[in-house]
Amino acid sequence: MFDINNLIAHPHNQIKLSDYSTQYVGTFTDKSDSGPVRKQNLERLTQLQDMLYAFDKHAVLLIFQAMDAAGKDGTIKHVMSGVNPQGCEVVSFQAPSTNELKHDFLWRTYRRLPERGKIGIFNRSYYEEVLVTKVMPQFILKQRIPGIRSLKDINQNFWEERYRSINEMERHLHQNGTVILKFFLHVSRKEQKKRFMDRILKADKHWKFDMSDIESRDNWDKFQNAYETMINHTSTNYAPWYIIPADHKWFMRTAVSQILVDKLEELDLHYPKVTKLQQENIEKAKQILSTEKK
Amino acid sequence: MFDINNLIAHPHNQIKLSDYSTQYVGTFTDKSDSGPVRKQNLERLTQLQDMLYAFDKHAVLLIFQAMDAAGKDGTIKHVMSGVNPQGCEVVSFQAPSTNELKHDFLWRTYRRLPERGKIGIFNRSYYEEVLVTKVMPQFILKQRIPGIRSLKDINQNFWEERYRSINEMERHLHQNGTVILKFFLHVSRKEQKKRFMDRILKADKHWKFDMSDIESRDNWDKFQNAYETMINHTSTNYAPWYIIPADHKWFMRTAVSQILVDKLEELDLHYPKVTKLQQENIEKAKQILSTEKK
Repeated sequence: MFDINNLIAHPHNQIKLSDYSTQYVGTFTDKSDSGPVRKQNLERLTQLQDMLYAFDKHAVLLIFQAMDAAGKDGTIKHVMSGVNPQGCEVVSFQAPSTNELKHDFLWRTYRRLPERGKIGIFNRSYYEEVLVTKVMPQFILKQRIPGIRSLKDINQNFWEERYRSINEMERHLHQNGTVILKFFLHVSRKEQKKRFMDRILKADKHWKFDMSDIESRDNWDKFQNAYETMINHTSTNYAPWYIIPADHKWFMRTAVSQILVDKLEELDLHYPKVTKLQQENIEKAKQILSTEKK
Repeated sequence: MFDINNLIAHPHNQIKLSDYSTQYVGTFTDKSDSGPVRKQNLERLTQLQDMLYAFDKHAVLLIFQAMDAAGKDGTIKHVMSGVNPQGCEVVSFQAPSTNELKHDFLWRTYRRLPERGKIGIFNRSYYEEVLVTKVMPQFILKQRIPGIRSLKDINQNFWEERYRSINEMERHLHQNGTVILKFFLHVSRKEQKKRFMDRILKADKHWKFDMSDIESRDNWDKFQNAYETMINHTSTNYAPWYIIPADHKWFMRTAVSQILVDKLEELDLHYPKVTKLQQENIEKAKQILSTEKK
């Protein structure tokens, strides 16, 4: 087994990503050994989701960020398959559209936030605005922000303001009932290469192949640095980052499902109590239906 | 004339609404005397709006809050009629819908924020969440916020968090290019009575009559208090409140149009410079069109 608290990037600590292993270290021996835990979590998650809806006090927002091929899609698929899709929506954020670029950088995600009683999953998110734009700041210029005329205007203060915008929005959402869980899927450069080779060698995975993914390996260190800085600025008590070792897909899926179940359990969800009036009405309805002529 | 700076609720000052006159005091003698100023402002506003669109760096958000019959609708109508509706959208926020109540209190307004190059007008806004709910906190319970089980949970800290949510969101919008101007239309209890009587006595104004408006006069002092506290918590350098004397409709309209024009002038808007390539293409296009056979 493992302790999910070991995976939290504790607020106020300055973490170094290189201190975090991309490999699972624990007492599970392999995929099949951990299978019963995943199965149990999925069953419990199905119950908890139903109670989340009935309880009607919290929304749950899961955010996934990672390098390409780290396993965002696969993890979402495996952890969430089986839960009622009526209570769960996955939104994938690709490069912003022309229309989206006409708004502040939080706008396109804000409008897709989950409502009370539901689980929303962001496959990439507003965090791209301090990740891909950090490594390739020329994208910022497209946003036509006052005072940002050239790359040299994009300074430390600019990023600090972005982290503040994000932190304050998440604080507001937390205050108003949204539970926010953020997952960084931490994959090694070596494992990424293996997965890319897999896509190249297997015809049924060719659709996932994108040359720009390979090219972004050139910026590996810059991206790791952007993730590390982002985690250090935005892991908070109300919206912590979890750093998930991602070299073993089975462990990544087990860990995410465990964190989700544990955090939902902490909400102390329960079905609303049936009132005396409701109970009486249920009795009446029973009588009406059972004495109905046809 | 008048100085718009006299109408700002300066940040960090603790203002008292009772110190602000609901009557205009200045050198204009009446409606017709101030007419040329309004006419000139409307013409200039039309030009500025066109440049705002071409300049493509700022969105402009106007927020109107006031007691009933203070003149929100009339002011929006008179100040904005004549500007290109393609570049201007008015959104009126009434009581939230069931669906809107399933989200945090900023969600329904956030998605209607104006995009770059456009003017958005909120006729009422997220400020209702610290006004009508302040006077009638039972509405808060409908929002099913964790920790808020009964009226006694709605304490000073609760309101401080709401002001913070609003201030931080406005700060974020300002940082990303939205100009925010907030107008409190300050009408006297006596003038409100006169306008209600007008609605009651004139058949063509009966459609505007709503019994609950009359009833809310019972809460006049509580509302004035809520406006005052709200202004003192949320008038900032990046999004100031203007307190507009509203007993004379003509002055209210003059003042709002003057503030809007002055603030747009401050943005130093200009049409993008035509590049050498564009200039050459314009010449080419001229030649192609003028030598076309049919």
